[in-house]
Amino acid sequence: MKWVGPLRVSGNVALAETQVPLATYESPLWPSVGRGAKVSMLAERGIVATLVDERMTRSVLVEATDAGTAHAAARAIEARIEELRAVVRTCSRFAELIGIRHEINANLLFIRFEFSTGDASGHNMATLASDALLGHLLQTVPGISYGSISGNYCTDKKATAVNGILGRGKNVVTELLVPREVVEGVLHTTAAKVVRLNLRKNLLGTLLAGGIRSANAHYANMLLAFYLATGQDAANIVEGSQGVTMAEDRDGDLYFSCTLPNLIVGTVGNGKGLPFVETNLTRLGCRADRAPGENARRLAVIAAATVLCGELSLLAAQTNPGELMRAHVQLERDTTTAKVGA
Amino acid sequence: MKWVGPLRVSGNVALAETQVPLATYESPLWPSVGRGAKVSMLAERGIVATLVDERMTRSVLVEATDAGTAHAAARAIEARIEELRAVVRTCSRFAELIGIRHEINANLLFIRFEFSTGDASGHNMATLASDALLGHLLQTVPGISYGSISGNYCTDKKATAVNGILGRGKNVVTELLVPREVVEGVLHTTAAKVVRLNLRKNLLGTLLAGGIRSANAHYANMLLAFYLATGQDAANIVEGSQGVTMAEDRDGDLYFSCTLPNLIVGTVGNGKGLPFVETNLTRLGCRADRAPGENARRLAVIAAATVLCGELSLLAAQTNPGELMRAHVQLERDTTTAKVGA
Amino acid sequence: MKWVGPLRVSGNVALAETQVPLATYESPLWPSVGRGAKVSMLAERGIVATLVDERMTRSVLVEATDAGTAHAAARAIEARIEELRAVVRTCSRFAELIGIRHEINANLLFIRFEFSTGDASGHNMATLASDALLGHLLQTVPGISYGSISGNYCTDKKATAVNGILGRGKNVVTELLVPREVVEGVLHTTAAKVVRLNLRKNLLGTLLAGGIRSANAHYANMLLAFYLATGQDAANIVEGSQGVTMAEDRDGDLYFSCTLPNLIVGTVGNGKGLPFVETNLTRLGCRADRAPGENARRLAVIAAATVLCGELSLLAAQTNPGELMRAHVQLERDTTTAKVGA
Amino acid sequence: MKWVGPLRVSGNVALAETQVPLATYESPLWPSVGRGAKVSMLAERGIVATLVDERMTRSVLVEATDAGTAHAAARAIEARIEELRAVVRTCSRFAELIGIRHEINANLLFIRFEFSTGDASGHNMATLASDALLGHLLQTVPGISYGSISGNYCTDKKATAVNGILGRGKNVVTELLVPREVVEGVLHTTAAKVVRLNLRKNLLGTLLAGGIRSANAHYANMLLAFYLATGQDAANIVEGSQGVTMAEDRDGDLYFSCTLPNLIVGTVGNGKGLPFVETNLTRLGCRADRAPGENARRLAVIAAATVLCGELSLLAAQTNPGELMRAHVQLERDTTTAKVGA
Repeated sequence: MKWVGPLRVSGNVALAETQVPLATYESPLWPSVGRGAKVSMLAERGIVATLVDERMTRSVLVEATDAGTAHAAARAIEARIEELRAVVRTCSRFAELIGIRHEINANLLFIRFEFSTGDASGHNMATLASDALLGHLLQTVPGISYGSISGNYCTDKKATAVNGILGRGKNVVTELLVPREVVEGVLHTTAAKVVRLNLRKNLLGTLLAGGIRSANAHYANMLLAFYLATGQDAANIVEGSQGVTMAEDRDGDLYFSCTLPNLIVGTVGNGKGLPFVETNLTRLGCRADRAPGENARRLAVIAAATVLCGELSLLAAQTNPGELMRAHVQLERDTTTAKVGA
Repeated sequence: MKWVGPLRVSGNVALAETQVPLATYESPLWPSVGRGAKVSMLAERGIVATLVDERMTRSVLVEATDAGTAHAAARAIEARIEELRAVVRTCSRFAELIGIRHEINANLLFIRFEFSTGDASGHNMATLASDALLGHLLQTVPGISYGSISGNYCTDKKATAVNGILGRGKNVVTELLVPREVVEGVLHTTAAKVVRLNLRKNLLGTLLAGGIRSANAHYANMLLAFYLATGQDAANIVEGSQGVTMAEDRDGDLYFSCTLPNLIVGTVGNGKGLPFVETNLTRLGCRADRAPGENARRLAVIAAATVLCGELSLLAAQTNPGELMRAHVQLERDTTTAKVGA
Repeated sequence: MKWVGPLRVSGNVALAETQVPLATYESPLWPSVGRGAKVSMLAERGIVATLVDERMTRSVLVEATDAGTAHAAARAIEARIEELRAVVRTCSRFAELIGIRHEINANLLFIRFEFSTGDASGHNMATLASDALLGHLLQTVPGISYGSISGNYCTDKKATAVNGILGRGKNVVTELLVPREVVEGVLHTTAAKVVRLNLRKNLLGTLLAGGIRSANAHYANMLLAFYLATGQDAANIVEGSQGVTMAEDRDGDLYFSCTLPNLIVGTVGNGKGLPFVETNLTRLGCRADRAPGENARRLAVIAAATVLCGELSLLAAQTNPGELMRAHVQLERDTTTAKVGA
Repeated sequence: MKWVGPLRVSGNVALAETQVPLATYESPLWPSVGRGAKVSMLAERGIVATLVDERMTRSVLVEATDAGTAHAAARAIEARIEELRAVVRTCSRFAELIGIRHEINANLLFIRFEFSTGDASGHNMATLASDALLGHLLQTVPGISYGSISGNYCTDKKATAVNGILGRGKNVVTELLVPREVVEGVLHTTAAKVVRLNLRKNLLGTLLAGGIRSANAHYANMLLAFYLATGQDAANIVEGSQGVTMAEDRDGDLYFSCTLPNLIVGTVGNGKGLPFVETNLTRLGCRADRAPGENARRLAVIAAATVLCGELSLLAAQTNPGELMRAHVQLERDTTTAKVGA
């Protein structure tokens, strides 16, 4: 594990400058993110991060007598949301039911509960609450029976479309305006080249590969390293790494943006009690005495900004033939083997 | 990290019984995989694993004057595969070019090189070889210019369709026939219940969620833990966790199968020099003196079998209302915090 | 064009028995749907059709100064829904704004307006209303400018995930319980065989092909023929044919269901004034003097039931080796060339 | 039905100028395609169409004893391709087996046969040949049994990834370089505006909607009208409309390209005997005495060029607020109702 940066972040979740911890076996990641961080320090507002949504979800599955019964049940359930909110309150101090969506297929009804979960990523809290809700519904709604506590319409640790469309985790948009002289001097490229590469590789290449709601070079790398270093459930990089990089040439300056709709992070819960995790979260300012949810939002924003740094750096490198391999070969020669959790 | 098992594996890559190391912050994973492992020991042939394909790929991107030129270039390149094989031989002892695919869009040509890479997962080897190939092609094929060393049609660490369809990584099918009495006695369920849940949750639920080439409950969890414990680049769980669970009720016995087409694993390379990784790989029998590629194949098969164990156990649990939560709550109460890399 | 049937339909949109008009160049379609129709007449309740949702959508695209401004705009717009409803009322007698969803990516804001549109499929009505809404918003919301009247997040005539998840068109679930003797006597197969084929071909095969939110054998065939015969915009078969077939073996009886979430049909509007269309709609009972929307709902339900008939018949045929080809060869020999629009 | 154009086409399938027949209920389509056609006449080389691949496919499904047997069967089958070619020759004068791909999942083997089919679109020819191949394999390959004559991995009339990646139908790339003065004078826009809209709407918007291998505004509209007018199986617009529009600003000139990888068209077969179809195909020059396949390739290229015309025109219109609606309202007022097949 290494600390990289500092990088500069502003936006609707208050921050300033911070270093970030990255745990990885892939040593070239550190200088790559480091270069992006350096760029962020040279941009006036740094990386502007906007958290646009947050919720944790769990979809239960029930079987109905037939589709008509499923339809009636769905309508009844959505009409009883206040009652269901009360059920959730009885089983958790932090979880709050904030929405219900459903989908019917044949005689099956998928009910997707949406929760706010404070500073926890909320997997367990949402599952516990959904278990209570499901029990309550099975007892009070006629014509339905148990299907599954999870119907894969949640969706946890899978790359799908539903999470981005309906929301799951923290949805963070990051933007960075890189002045032309920094594009050239630090990134050794031009805005036009980055724009062209992003279009052809991230948008078109991923499309042709048959990707789903995603267009980026390597979000998964940064997320894995950041999640491991901060005690997250790193299997959530599967959906977390779905996101879109956009780039624009603004008179030679480079507008660069990464949208990450599915960041599942928390500052309390499983894995957060490990000493190195506590240290890292504290150093990131994510263990402060704030309103519930504020620490987790701060962590999500830092995660997203870290992703932008690594993405920008790699894309810039790939605009130039041969640069990537030279960098890799050199770095792996220079770097002693990485350690995770150490 | 914990060792779980033993589990029993047979198939076209020779094995017998083995324990498996799992590094995770999510402690319920250990007993869950452990239960699946126990089931495998009670089935006559254990988990039968069939490795059906292996290759590592990298797609470069070149820009042509126009589509006609791209088309001519693609045909010329595929006709020169022997020459290109020689180019690869000059830059790697282990990488071998085994195939070329291409796709044209507008005036852009994506060329997907397929390699065998011995016991390495092969990311760097493939990139290095592709860099040499690209340089060679840019000098010898008229009308094309540099686009990108990676065109996202590879595809690395993204959930797409191309990897499963054209192949990337090791493609392993695992099958287990669980006798009725084990289904009932150890898994506390029936074959019919598992079949129904798999259809509704994994196949239908993931489909409705907008998944791509995937239908499983939580492959990502097992893969992450196994990849971390064996020094893999765990960001490859993104595509590695795409796979399909199938279940059949065979007169009360349960036929259960997990197909994982995109396992990117190696026994040499980045991360493999860490002491605990060396220890773990050795204990798994994946550091033995075998023909190149044999150790990595063995590792892939163990990874896939581990996935089956965890998948079977979770699905069985979810057939019964409330069991999952009871298990979680109990386990997290009992378990001291997990440690990764320790 | 031929009339096929009768078929029997019941459910939450009142019907009884009806023949259906199918315009196609593929003559085997008529007897195939005809066989399914025959089956529906032999089942007690016939095909039970449940309309579970209906809405027409159009997503406009606006560019904001930055993501923060886009976020503020989205919140402001959703808070002003009553005002926007009034705007819609000024430009259409039938369109009513019933919901707004949005998604932000970088500094771009996609706003998806949801309308009810009476008996029209509603493409033009929704576009006209969205044009008015967009003009209104550009004048009253600070920091945004025109992007596009359609941002492809609607989504019209494309196979995507958003329509099924958020709703677009009429969402109809059809169910049919086929008695064992009819399965055997008319369909020449068994429930178990149909269940197995549906799992392997429709669910697994489509998944492996890289399908998106779809699992069926040939919904597109029936929809095309029905849409052409009833004056619909048949390009809407692209998303209309996304849907899922489910089958269950209920003690030898076959439970068979087709869910079609995106049926875009109307009984007034473009194409409906053609004489043969008027005739067909009248004969289908879809030109009656009913509450606005009732005729279109009736038409959607008949379309969905027709799809079920053809789907059931083809799947049954494919359970038996060679039957499909024998049927095709025989039929094309027997049938005089089909005529569309005549 | 109306004839639109002329449009100018060049490329690797010889053509010059041609009008095109479009059968649609949506009257604004005619002037829209007409405007694009006009633009093509003002560009030096017109629309340059490159046919980069052609094949028709059918995937059969067989069940094997287990995955190991499936794997052995797949290898045996691919090794016997010459023998299988001979089988195909016995059942068709025109079908030729040109490739085999397979995919294994659990104990199931999907075998995707690839054929050339002369001037026919080839659905029936491929199915007939596959039926013969399947019968032959079931008799000669041990351990496999009948699954389905079609395993949905073909894939016919579904939007998937496999067709674009492995090829199905005719793959045509069209390119048009529109001089700046034509962009401004005829399309009333600028290259920069079209580029920006294409990025945001077609690439990003479709991605966010959860599209699969597709990025265009309305290919389905043009294909439907062209397919109906030329006697095609118009249900093939489902996969035919998957394709990608690319645009570049080349110093004010507009480079515009549509790639359509899945055009399923023929000049003989079902529907081609209708008098108006014969007339239309003849007038298009697609009934000439040419080498087998040449007429169908010519038809595919015209179809693709027609798509480009309509796509370019609509995108240009959508760059300007309000233009689209004004055009629609005006046109529908001016136009007498469209007739299909007349």
